[in-house]
Amino acid sequence: MGAHEEICSRVLKAITPKPEERQKVMSMAESIMGRLRDLLEAEGVKAEVRLEGSLAKDTWLSGEADVDIFVRFRPDVPKEFFKTRFLELAKEATKGLRHVERYAEHPYLECLADGVRVNVVPCYDVRPGGWLSATDRTPYHTDFIKANLPDRLKGDVRLLKKFMKGIGAYGAEIKVGGFSGYLCELLVIYYGGFLEVLKGALRWRKGALIDLAGHYEGREEEAREFFRHHLIVVDPVDPFRNVAAPVRLEKMCLFMAAAREFLLRPSDAFFFPPKPGPPALQELRGMLRARGTSLLAIYTRVEGMAPDVLWGQVFRTLRALRGTLGRAGFEVLRTAGWSDEQEHCVLLIELASSRLPPVVKKVGPPVWVEEHVERFLRKNMADPGLVSGPYVEGDRWVVLVKRKWPYAKEFLVKNLSEQGGRQIGVAPLLAKCVEEGFQVLEGEELAELCGKLKGFPEFLRDFLVGRPAWLAGRSWEAG
Amino acid sequence: MGAHEEICSRVLKAITPKPEERQKVMSMAESIMGRLRDLLEAEGVKAEVRLEGSLAKDTWLSGEADVDIFVRFRPDVPKEFFKTRFLELAKEATKGLRHVERYAEHPYLECLADGVRVNVVPCYDVRPGGWLSATDRTPYHTDFIKANLPDRLKGDVRLLKKFMKGIGAYGAEIKVGGFSGYLCELLVIYYGGFLEVLKGALRWRKGALIDLAGHYEGREEEAREFFRHHLIVVDPVDPFRNVAAPVRLEKMCLFMAAAREFLLRPSDAFFFPPKPGPPALQELRGMLRARGTSLLAIYTRVEGMAPDVLWGQVFRTLRALRGTLGRAGFEVLRTAGWSDEQEHCVLLIELASSRLPPVVKKVGPPVWVEEHVERFLRKNMADPGLVSGPYVEGDRWVVLVKRKWPYAKEFLVKNLSEQGGRQIGVAPLLAKCVEEGFQVLEGEELAELCGKLKGFPEFLRDFLVGRPAWLAGRSWEAG
Repeated sequence: MGAHEEICSRVLKAITPKPEERQKVMSMAESIMGRLRDLLEAEGVKAEVRLEGSLAKDTWLSGEADVDIFVRFRPDVPKEFFKTRFLELAKEATKGLRHVERYAEHPYLECLADGVRVNVVPCYDVRPGGWLSATDRTPYHTDFIKANLPDRLKGDVRLLKKFMKGIGAYGAEIKVGGFSGYLCELLVIYYGGFLEVLKGALRWRKGALIDLAGHYEGREEEAREFFRHHLIVVDPVDPFRNVAAPVRLEKMCLFMAAAREFLLRPSDAFFFPPKPGPPALQELRGMLRARGTSLLAIYTRVEGMAPDVLWGQVFRTLRALRGTLGRAGFEVLRTAGWSDEQEHCVLLIELASSRLPPVVKKVGPPVWVEEHVERFLRKNMADPGLVSGPYVEGDRWVVLVKRKWPYAKEFLVKNLSEQGGRQIGVAPLLAKCVEEGFQVLEGEELAELCGKLKGFPEFLRDFLVGRPAWLAGRSWEAG
Repeated sequence: MGAHEEICSRVLKAITPKPEERQKVMSMAESIMGRLRDLLEAEGVKAEVRLEGSLAKDTWLSGEADVDIFVRFRPDVPKEFFKTRFLELAKEATKGLRHVERYAEHPYLECLADGVRVNVVPCYDVRPGGWLSATDRTPYHTDFIKANLPDRLKGDVRLLKKFMKGIGAYGAEIKVGGFSGYLCELLVIYYGGFLEVLKGALRWRKGALIDLAGHYEGREEEAREFFRHHLIVVDPVDPFRNVAAPVRLEKMCLFMAAAREFLLRPSDAFFFPPKPGPPALQELRGMLRARGTSLLAIYTRVEGMAPDVLWGQVFRTLRALRGTLGRAGFEVLRTAGWSDEQEHCVLLIELASSRLPPVVKKVGPPVWVEEHVERFLRKNMADPGLVSGPYVEGDRWVVLVKRKWPYAKEFLVKNLSEQGGRQIGVAPLLAKCVEEGFQVLEGEELAELCGKLKGFPEFLRDFLVGRPAWLAGRSWEAG
């Protein structure tokens, strides 16, 4: 048995649910479903109550069961019903469990019982293509996987999911922008096994196309043109849907990079990355001091935003700030967002330097563009910040002038103080939060945040190290 | 009379030679030519002795007479004769004058008498197109101007030449890269006057084409394709020669810029720029200290190089250093060269900052380029300068590493110490000088050079100010 197989079999043992766990979760699911069926019958509503998701497909990971119960209504049930009476019935059926309110496009109920998450989700019983709500496809997905995933590949799906989790590429939510469970199942069916998926991914390029059901057979370019995405996995139950649409390029590539490394230098760390506890404040201070770059953090409170909305705002804002800071002359090395998804949010921006040379070269118009030349000369010769020139360089008028914002922290504070930074690209909902209050911290000042934000010190340490755990293996030292 | 005409007439009075000066210079020319004719006859050589240049064309400036005497030999005289017997005869004919040795492609004799320069130059009497030496065209140029420049435009030529001198655009030598006297004459003939040349120049763009003799009539694009230059003035006596070939883009544009300014805001400063004496050392130190940029100077001795060779080396080197320093991450704002053309040379480089952030982002290969990824990871994970990563950004592996040369002065000193800086682009002959010894000075250290180099303090002051004298007029303050 090779090193890969040995590791896989060891991991599989740890992540496959044992009979007792299986028993416990399934009986909880059955009992809720039974109660739901009774309540719906008493209500006089015709609806099918089904178990969906990884539990139904038997691809769930031990200790991480999600009970997804779908209630499939006939198309003539008004959507309003989902938000009102349906939620009441669902709450009734799950009486005794802790209910969590969810703000999603689609109303559903989330409950917690013994560390198991139970979702009760309404959907419509429609034919493929006639989708009335976002969740109508799910029963078809379940059916497709049940029909096409042989028992012998269920372990491979579990391995792939665990691998994705280990490298931080699991989940279609915006925070992750990675691979959903359904996508993992489709990949295992397509390539025929866990290691086969890894090997297959090495051949991916931008525009990789996987079309299990052959919806686009012989029309691959058409599919690429239609979906326009770096990774396209056509949904077997819906030719107009790309199951990989939520996968960001970076996550696609992170997976490809990890796949390559695992095949070359297998290790348990891909599945079970070491999780060192929070770093000591002293240690973090030392790392920040020794780094040589400028690390800036924008802190703000973000209560009451749904996670997908929050992360959408965070990523949009970071992208915009990279642009704004770049145009202001700062060299942005890296950005990242952190949030507990409840209360706090931190935008991290690492600059080569937060202080720029105080003088900047302004290249003006070519000497022959009359009106522009006149305006350029007038403006700059009257500028009290003029350092040198105007002079002719090549075919253009040029001046050296004092830089307006040589210090990034001041630039940020100034701009965030005006309309929450909307004019430098802070996304609207986040700008509202910033208007309520914000802090900009630099370098060792970040230690202040570490004291008050649970989970942030670990995040900051990982950000500073940069290197994924699975890259830091022993075999490199030898090379 | 408008402001322009008033200024022009005042300037013209100052620069037109008075009868006494004319008399003196012409009689000197006649006497040398007479002696030369006698000597050549005694030698038994058939040759025509002619007066050429601005004296012959009556376009010279008072106080700046150049006596250009050409000896036109028949084509069967060997070139060897020019270098040997001819130079002896020329020396004999100019006995009593101070002789200056000249290292040009073409041998000739330069003498100085009473502040008047006398050149005795050999050439061949050939038909246009059958050129045997670089100076054979000159008599044809003289004849063309004599035949085509009406007396009433001679003052206009003088004004244009003086204007070019005033703004630093006069002369085809490499140091200047500007407009020769012959080019000024052609422009005045073409446009019909001094102010007309200025107005005409405003319409120039890259690829401007002036073809007095109509060599390329109806085939203008062909001419542009053949000459491939930003300013093309076809030589009336040689359709294959661009009289404006030595004009650098920057000098073409400097002239256009100055022309525009003079037409808008005329002033004597264009012709007679104020020449303040050398600045006090204290003043220069203050300017250097307050500037906010980093000024670096490379000093070396350059004895025994002909000016055109020296300046060629200087400009090549500056261009290369802009590239090398730029690739090393430094932002080069401006460069300039200074030399007394005898002994000393200074290369000036102004950087936004001579110190760069100590950390640099290295963007590696896309994750799917197998061999490059392996090499990139191996190399960087073993690098003791690794600061963060490797991590995946977009579709690529990236690291943050310590910058190798964060300090420009050290970068220069290190590289100039190896083969005189050939590997960072110092031109070969200059590199030889650098190998003999060099200094790199920064900021206030430049004051050291000011003490020992005559003329350098003025140059440095002008460089720091940047703004041409003719731009600094009163009318701007009002705007």
